[in-house]
Amino acid sequence: MAPFLFELRHKDSNSSARRGTLTTPHGVVETPTFMPVGTRGSVKGVEVGLLEETGSQIVLGNTYHLMLRPGAEIVRELGGLHGFTGWKRPMLTDSGGFQLFSLAKLTKINEEGAVFQSHIDGSRFALTPEGSIAIQEALGADVVMAFDHVVALPNSRAVVEDAMRRTVRWAKRCRDAKRREDQALFGIVQGGLDYGMRRYCAEELAELDFQGYAIGGLSVGEEPCEMYDCIEAVEPYLPQDKPRYLMGVGRPEDLLEGIKRGVDMFDCVMPSRNGRNAMAFTDCGPMRLRNARYERDPRPLEENCPCPACRRSRAYIRHLFTTGEMLGPILLTIHNITYYQRLVAGARKAIEEDRYLEFCEERFEGWRAGVPE
Amino acid sequence: MAPFLFELRHKDSNSSARRGTLTTPHGVVETPTFMPVGTRGSVKGVEVGLLEETGSQIVLGNTYHLMLRPGAEIVRELGGLHGFTGWKRPMLTDSGGFQLFSLAKLTKINEEGAVFQSHIDGSRFALTPEGSIAIQEALGADVVMAFDHVVALPNSRAVVEDAMRRTVRWAKRCRDAKRREDQALFGIVQGGLDYGMRRYCAEELAELDFQGYAIGGLSVGEEPCEMYDCIEAVEPYLPQDKPRYLMGVGRPEDLLEGIKRGVDMFDCVMPSRNGRNAMAFTDCGPMRLRNARYERDPRPLEENCPCPACRRSRAYIRHLFTTGEMLGPILLTIHNITYYQRLVAGARKAIEEDRYLEFCEERFEGWRAGVPE
Repeated sequence: MAPFLFELRHKDSNSSARRGTLTTPHGVVETPTFMPVGTRGSVKGVEVGLLEETGSQIVLGNTYHLMLRPGAEIVRELGGLHGFTGWKRPMLTDSGGFQLFSLAKLTKINEEGAVFQSHIDGSRFALTPEGSIAIQEALGADVVMAFDHVVALPNSRAVVEDAMRRTVRWAKRCRDAKRREDQALFGIVQGGLDYGMRRYCAEELAELDFQGYAIGGLSVGEEPCEMYDCIEAVEPYLPQDKPRYLMGVGRPEDLLEGIKRGVDMFDCVMPSRNGRNAMAFTDCGPMRLRNARYERDPRPLEENCPCPACRRSRAYIRHLFTTGEMLGPILLTIHNITYYQRLVAGARKAIEEDRYLEFCEERFEGWRAGVPE
Repeated sequence: MAPFLFELRHKDSNSSARRGTLTTPHGVVETPTFMPVGTRGSVKGVEVGLLEETGSQIVLGNTYHLMLRPGAEIVRELGGLHGFTGWKRPMLTDSGGFQLFSLAKLTKINEEGAVFQSHIDGSRFALTPEGSIAIQEALGADVVMAFDHVVALPNSRAVVEDAMRRTVRWAKRCRDAKRREDQALFGIVQGGLDYGMRRYCAEELAELDFQGYAIGGLSVGEEPCEMYDCIEAVEPYLPQDKPRYLMGVGRPEDLLEGIKRGVDMFDCVMPSRNGRNAMAFTDCGPMRLRNARYERDPRPLEENCPCPACRRSRAYIRHLFTTGEMLGPILLTIHNITYYQRLVAGARKAIEEDRYLEFCEERFEGWRAGVPE
C-alpha cells in the first residue's frame, strides 16, 4: 500500500501555478494549501472544531517545541499528534532545524548533529538527523521533514555553502533512518540567496527521491523580491511530480507570489500572531481593530466571510480587544486563518480556470486600495 | 401579548426543589438553571457556538461593566446584547448594585442613587434606579434586575436595615421607571443574615408584583450553612408562582443546596474563573490539571461528558496549561460550564422523578470521594 500520492491536476496556462492533491493517511490536501501552525499541539486559542471550520486541511506541529514539552514519548503514548490534539486531518511536523537556528540557545552544530540548550530552562539536548526522524515518527504526522542546517542571511558564501552541503548529507541520513511507511519525508533545499547553491542542493535532493521538497531558509530577513527571485531560480530543479513547500511563508501577497512560481504548500504564524494583536486580514488589506474608527461600526470584518468573527460587528471585536477579553484574539485568529484558507481556495479555483494572474491582480488591487470608510 | 411566563411544572415531594420553565422573548429556560457570566459581552474565552454546546440556556451580562465599556448606547445601536454578542438565547442583566459594592471606587450612596468612580480609570459616574433601568433597557436582556443597595457582611443591624429599606424603595422606583414590555423585571431581596429583615423585604417586594425575585447580598463571605439557613428562612415569603434567583452563587454543592431550598436560578463566575486556573469540576470533585499525576493520563476529565475538553486526554490539557497555551483555559472553561449545566439538568430530571434528595446524596458522595488514581 502506498498511502501517499501527489497528483498534479492542472497547471495555470500563464504562470507556474499548479493545482494538485496530496493524499495522506489522514485525508486529502488540496494544493496550493496553507498550513496553520500548531506549535505545541494547539493552534493558539482555536478549539479543533473551530479550526476545522476555517477550512484548514493540514496543520503543522513543531518538533523542537514538542520534544521539550511534553516530550515525544508522551505524545506517542497518547496516540501521536492526532490522538493528542484531536485534529483528525493531515498533519506535518518540521524537523527542528529552523528552531535550533531561531530559538534555541548556544546551539553548536557539527557533522553528527546539533547540541543546544532549551529556550525554556536552559537544559541541554542533542538533535541529529536520526534523532529528528525518530521524534517525528513518535509524533506521527503524515508528513515529516528532513533535519536541515539553517544559517542567518546575509552570511558569507562559505558558511552558506557549508550548511547547504551538510543539509544534503543530513537529508540522506534522514532518508536512511526513516522506518514508518505511513509518513512521507520531504527534503529541504538550502543555499541562501545563491542560485547556484540552491540549484545544486535541489538536484542533489532530487536524486535522493523524497516524497516532497521544501524551500527552507527564506523569509529570514531578506527582501520579498529577493525571496521571489530565489524561488523562481530553484523551481525548475524541483521535481515536477512532487509537492513543493515554502517553509515559514508568509504574508498573503507572499502566498500568491509563491503559488505563481510553482509552490504548493505554505505555513506561517502570521495569521494567528497578527490576529492575537488585533490585526485582521481582509480583501481590502489589514484592519487594525483597536482603531477608534471601528468603535460603532456595525459591519462584519468582511461581508462574505463565513467565519464566527464575521457573524459579529467590528465594534464588538474592537470592544473585546479594548477590554482585554480573550475572545478578541480567538475570533481574529479564526478569521485570519479562514482568510488564508479562502485565499488559497480562490487561488485553486483560479488555477483551474487558467486565470490565476487575473486573480492575483484582483487581490493585489484590493490590498492596495485599503479599507474603505 | 405577555412574552413572559413562569410555569411551575413539578415540586419534589421530599424537598422544596422545583421544576419549572421560564418563557422569554428569546426562548424557554428550563429551571433550575445556571447562568454563565458574560461580564463584558463575552463568557471569557468561549465562542458563542461553543457556549451553546455547553447546554447553557441563559447568560448573564453586567450592567456596571457594560455601561463603562463600550457604553449602553453603543450596545443598543448594535442591536442590544443579543446583536452585540451573537448570543441568540435568553439573557439577564444585573443592575450594577453589586459591582458598586464590590468593584467601583469611592462609591457614595444617598437616597437618589450612587456616585462612584470607575475601577478602570477613576472617571466619575452616577447610577440611580431609573438610570440602571434605562441602561438595562438599552442593553436589551430578557430579564433585568432592580437596582439594589448591597452592604458588606457582617455589618451593624442599622446599616443592613437601612440598605434593605432603601432597596425596597429603589425597587419601586425601578418598577415605575420600566418601559419595555419585552423585558421581565426581578426584585432583589436584601437584609443580610437577619431573617426578620429578609422576610420583611420579601413581603414588601411581593406586594410590588415583580416577575421574579432574587436573593441578593449572599455569598459575600458568610459560611455556606449561614447562607443555606438564610435561603430557607426567606423562601416561604417569596411568591410560589414566580422564579427565584440566588445571585452570585456558587459552588456545585451550593447549587444543590439552593435548589433543595426552592431556588430556580443561579449565576457564578466560578466555573469560568476556576477553569482559567486549571481546575476542572467533576463528579469526583475538583481536578487540578497542573498536577504532575496527569502528565501521562490518557483518560478524559470525565468519561461521560460530551464537551470538547473531554474529547482530549487529561495529559493534553495538562500540557496546554504547563506550556501556557490559551486553549487550556478555553477548554476547562467549556468543561466547567458544561459540568454545571449537566448538574442542573440532572437536578431537573431528579425533581421530575421525586428523587432529588437521592440525587444530591449521589453527587455529594462522589465529591467527597475525590478523583480516583
